[in-house]
Amino acid sequence: MRHQQLSELGQQLRVDSVRAAAAAGSGHPTSSMSAADLMAVLMGNHLRYDFEQPEHPGNDHLIFSKGHASPLLYSIYKAAGALRDEEFLTFRKRGSRLEGHPTPRLPWVDVATGSLGQGLPYGVGTALSGKRLDHLPYRVWVLCGDSEMAEGSVWEAFEHAGYERLDNLIAIVDVNRLGQRGPTRHEWDLDAYARRIRAFDWHTVEIDGHDIEAIDRAYAEALSTVGRPTAIIARTMKGRGVASVENREGMHGKPLKNAEEAIAELGGVRNLAVPVLGPPSVTPTRPPSEGPLVLPRYNPGDSVPTRDAFGEAVAAVGTARGDVVALDGEVGDSTRLEYFHKEHPERYFEFFIAEQQLVAAAVGMQNRGWNPYVSTFAAFFTRAYDFIRMASISDAGLNLIGSHAGVAIGEDGPSQMGLEDLAALRAVHGSTVLYPSDANQAAQLTAAMAERSGIRYLRTTRGATPVIYPPSETFPIGGSKVIRATEDDRVTLIGAGVTLHEAIEAADRLAQEGIPARVIDLYSLKPVDVETLRTAAEVTGRLITVEDHHPEGGLGDAVLAAFGDGRPVPRMVRLAVRTMPASATPAEQLHDAGIDADAIVAAARDLAGRDS
Amino acid sequence: MRHQQLSELGQQLRVDSVRAAAAAGSGHPTSSMSAADLMAVLMGNHLRYDFEQPEHPGNDHLIFSKGHASPLLYSIYKAAGALRDEEFLTFRKRGSRLEGHPTPRLPWVDVATGSLGQGLPYGVGTALSGKRLDHLPYRVWVLCGDSEMAEGSVWEAFEHAGYERLDNLIAIVDVNRLGQRGPTRHEWDLDAYARRIRAFDWHTVEIDGHDIEAIDRAYAEALSTVGRPTAIIARTMKGRGVASVENREGMHGKPLKNAEEAIAELGGVRNLAVPVLGPPSVTPTRPPSEGPLVLPRYNPGDSVPTRDAFGEAVAAVGTARGDVVALDGEVGDSTRLEYFHKEHPERYFEFFIAEQQLVAAAVGMQNRGWNPYVSTFAAFFTRAYDFIRMASISDAGLNLIGSHAGVAIGEDGPSQMGLEDLAALRAVHGSTVLYPSDANQAAQLTAAMAERSGIRYLRTTRGATPVIYPPSETFPIGGSKVIRATEDDRVTLIGAGVTLHEAIEAADRLAQEGIPARVIDLYSLKPVDVETLRTAAEVTGRLITVEDHHPEGGLGDAVLAAFGDGRPVPRMVRLAVRTMPASATPAEQLHDAGIDADAIVAAARDLAGRDS
Repeated sequence: MRHQQLSELGQQLRVDSVRAAAAAGSGHPTSSMSAADLMAVLMGNHLRYDFEQPEHPGNDHLIFSKGHASPLLYSIYKAAGALRDEEFLTFRKRGSRLEGHPTPRLPWVDVATGSLGQGLPYGVGTALSGKRLDHLPYRVWVLCGDSEMAEGSVWEAFEHAGYERLDNLIAIVDVNRLGQRGPTRHEWDLDAYARRIRAFDWHTVEIDGHDIEAIDRAYAEALSTVGRPTAIIARTMKGRGVASVENREGMHGKPLKNAEEAIAELGGVRNLAVPVLGPPSVTPTRPPSEGPLVLPRYNPGDSVPTRDAFGEAVAAVGTARGDVVALDGEVGDSTRLEYFHKEHPERYFEFFIAEQQLVAAAVGMQNRGWNPYVSTFAAFFTRAYDFIRMASISDAGLNLIGSHAGVAIGEDGPSQMGLEDLAALRAVHGSTVLYPSDANQAAQLTAAMAERSGIRYLRTTRGATPVIYPPSETFPIGGSKVIRATEDDRVTLIGAGVTLHEAIEAADRLAQEGIPARVIDLYSLKPVDVETLRTAAEVTGRLITVEDHHPEGGLGDAVLAAFGDGRPVPRMVRLAVRTMPASATPAEQLHDAGIDADAIVAAARDLAGRDS
Repeated sequence: MRHQQLSELGQQLRVDSVRAAAAAGSGHPTSSMSAADLMAVLMGNHLRYDFEQPEHPGNDHLIFSKGHASPLLYSIYKAAGALRDEEFLTFRKRGSRLEGHPTPRLPWVDVATGSLGQGLPYGVGTALSGKRLDHLPYRVWVLCGDSEMAEGSVWEAFEHAGYERLDNLIAIVDVNRLGQRGPTRHEWDLDAYARRIRAFDWHTVEIDGHDIEAIDRAYAEALSTVGRPTAIIARTMKGRGVASVENREGMHGKPLKNAEEAIAELGGVRNLAVPVLGPPSVTPTRPPSEGPLVLPRYNPGDSVPTRDAFGEAVAAVGTARGDVVALDGEVGDSTRLEYFHKEHPERYFEFFIAEQQLVAAAVGMQNRGWNPYVSTFAAFFTRAYDFIRMASISDAGLNLIGSHAGVAIGEDGPSQMGLEDLAALRAVHGSTVLYPSDANQAAQLTAAMAERSGIRYLRTTRGATPVIYPPSETFPIGGSKVIRATEDDRVTLIGAGVTLHEAIEAADRLAQEGIPARVIDLYSLKPVDVETLRTAAEVTGRLITVEDHHPEGGLGDAVLAAFGDGRPVPRMVRLAVRTMPASATPAEQLHDAGIDADAIVAAARDLAGRDS
């Protein structure tokens, strides 16, 4: 499009942003107006996208990292003919696809944004897919705010994109000088941003973000830059075009006071229809399956760490499924994800110690149809918890595997122990949470988790645990295993992972004391096996849960979720890690935390002796 | 000390690192050996520290961000005469203060480390305290690994320290080229680090980290650099000094195979006692109380957002207590923390949108005796979850205030809704979790939380809620309020925050239907009011919990924690946010999530009608 038209389009995007916020009575028009010219030139002259076919493999990707500028994004969709004005004006209303911050309920939105500093790391994942997995020429455009440059996750992304030489990634930084509550750290010091980003091996271009010609040239320069990603640092004005809000503090996140006047000041309503460039005709390829799924098999009686079983299984899954990729946070030797690397190096990605970028990249990749396995220590997924939370809003399918769970890791101490991971992952909407106790089980769950939607979490154990199931046993997600059961059971012991083995030992000892105890392996914490737990409650009336996790939000709470519908609830005793651990051997740790067989026996004796 | 002695000291620190790991049978000697010369010169010639008086206000602060190099740290303590060899060799053993990763169980350790990328952000908090709160000349030395430079949190710290011109902060980057599983991203490209760090307005010095003279000069240069923090980028060798491990892959995190040979190769055991420089004689000052605590008072019947009450209360607490400081993540206008800023600007800190640095700085400040209030949206504390987890290991006292909780925020949509925060914060060891429903309650809890130890979390509400308590009412932490009660109650409704008001309305409607319902305001979720809940269970036999949070780990689980000791458990129905919300008004959100009065009435009717 010609520059005069693009200038008009910029005004249209502003007018529509004002209209949307006015109709909603809330929203962020001023943050939209600063970037309107940047987006007008992008959609008019550079973006390649077929709005009729959002799944077209040749489509570019446009990510609004500053998700609060959703009025601008929806104005683009409208100008592209993808949204009718009627729907456009449902912005922020109940039932509308046009949410306050963009989500993939709209087919043109890749990922939910709104928690700042996430769009660029997602873009890195998508751009990496383009280069190393899809081998497709799409480009990834990420509109960033200047405020969010303070987030460390953005610098994880700059670092990784520079390192991977992602010249298919373009960051557009809308430097409008004003954050939510006042000036940003660097205000209009474009060079402060540019020299930081350049130091991370990016190409940078500094422009006036309201100069249509300069914007157009900058995009062309970005597209012709080879071997480096490009950041366009654009000086803009928040609220640009309406004097009462332009470059003024206190105008963040609210509709303009007089929308009609503002629209008139912007030259009135326009109805330009933008002929967005189409994507190139491309043929996507996906690596074929290299063979059937042949999971590792372990012999009952042997001792094998579930992390090892995970590693061998994920390598096997990678052989059977061409769509599986693996992402490591510089601990692949410990998590055993490196077993995947040995067999499928082309689908293995090293993110070094940058857990936010690690998880974000997986979100970007799954958006391109890949099925990612992401692994680090259970404790260190807490570093990426906001990304996991946001991934659930994106309805992203991720396999997260947290190793080194609980006090059972032993001497390394509490900083390395996942003791909050079950609580955190269970609280994520739509998540699946698995915690195998045995190598054959771990292997099967590793394969099964990839078939689920949403966030799937598998917790693995550092040390060896006895193999108690034959390789032929099956472990449906949402199920459990009753290890011991008679009609005379007076108490039920429920464990998972390391604590299951303590529960089995406790049951053996209790049997000798004449207290028959049922034992349940609760390998699926979410969804939980409601029926088996209820039966156990009816028969034995008393439950003891034992978990290598803090008492809040883990296995004990998972069990109680089976009784949250008003039915009678059994008596319960909950054994969990209630003190701050220090260094000690694994066995000492279990003992000191009161989650070993001794503690279970004592609790069971006491509970079984009580009146019902 | 002379350079020859320092060289010997470096060897001693290596030998002792090897000895400690050998005695433990685990640990990270090679990561210790790379930084031994750096630390020898620091402790011999530059660190000012009285090991007899770890609380001396003039002491420098030494933070091992690479916490796995704990053998080196403990070797320093031993060389300084603070640890006897007998205790030194208890490294990683049960009951020892010498944990696998350092914790403040040792009086010379400020903060627990071991989750990488955290030491520098903590150091920023301590250095800021020195400059702007303590007005003391101590210096903060942070030993960083090269692998952890990949963590975004490190770049949040570089950015903030550069911005605040913290020339009392020195980062020492031990570039030993090898991470856990292989080479780091930049290996020995010192300039890759230096130009990134310089771009963030630091002074940098690149040296050979085994050249005693160069190290000594670099520290002197750092100490004479004014107006900028300094980073010393040191090229080192992992496992330096022992040929079988020096600069070799696969030698991370394990004792040396033949410790005796290695010690011989290092020249044998030494017993140098290092006369560490003493701290300057200083007089710490603390702002005096400006008056008694005069909390805001709200009139029953008015409607006031609890976030407003928090804001007014924290300003009042700041007046009464000179030790209180406030830290904002660029949302102070929304969280109302800015009310503190208006009255106490000298104790208010803006961290922009960098939640990891935000929380870390508070940890650094509380370590200096300050009592920090830290506020952002409830949802965005998930960004700092690993820092909160680690802060609990440091036994740090922090007041965290999460605003904009739950679906009740309305149109902004799920990215802005704290729906996992209660689960995450409850799962932190030793935490306190509060959720007021009324402005007077919020004000009192705001003041009371500062008196607790550990992590204190207060959840506030965006919209106005009715004031239901007189200003004279008291709200002990660990208590609750019974709002309605008779001996004939057939069901108990338990809410907090916005849902309490829905429960009250539901009780009114149920009373008209002839179903008397008890109502409990569970403003303290952890600790929870066990006695009141048990009484309600005994009298009514049936509980309904209702919470603006996902069903896992929140209020419903907090209630059940009162029944986890084997006593009879009441029947329960748990209303919570079980679907993914989108944009809608607050009232629509509560309705759609099934947590409004309508939903409570329906659930209570059903539950009260069941057989006991």
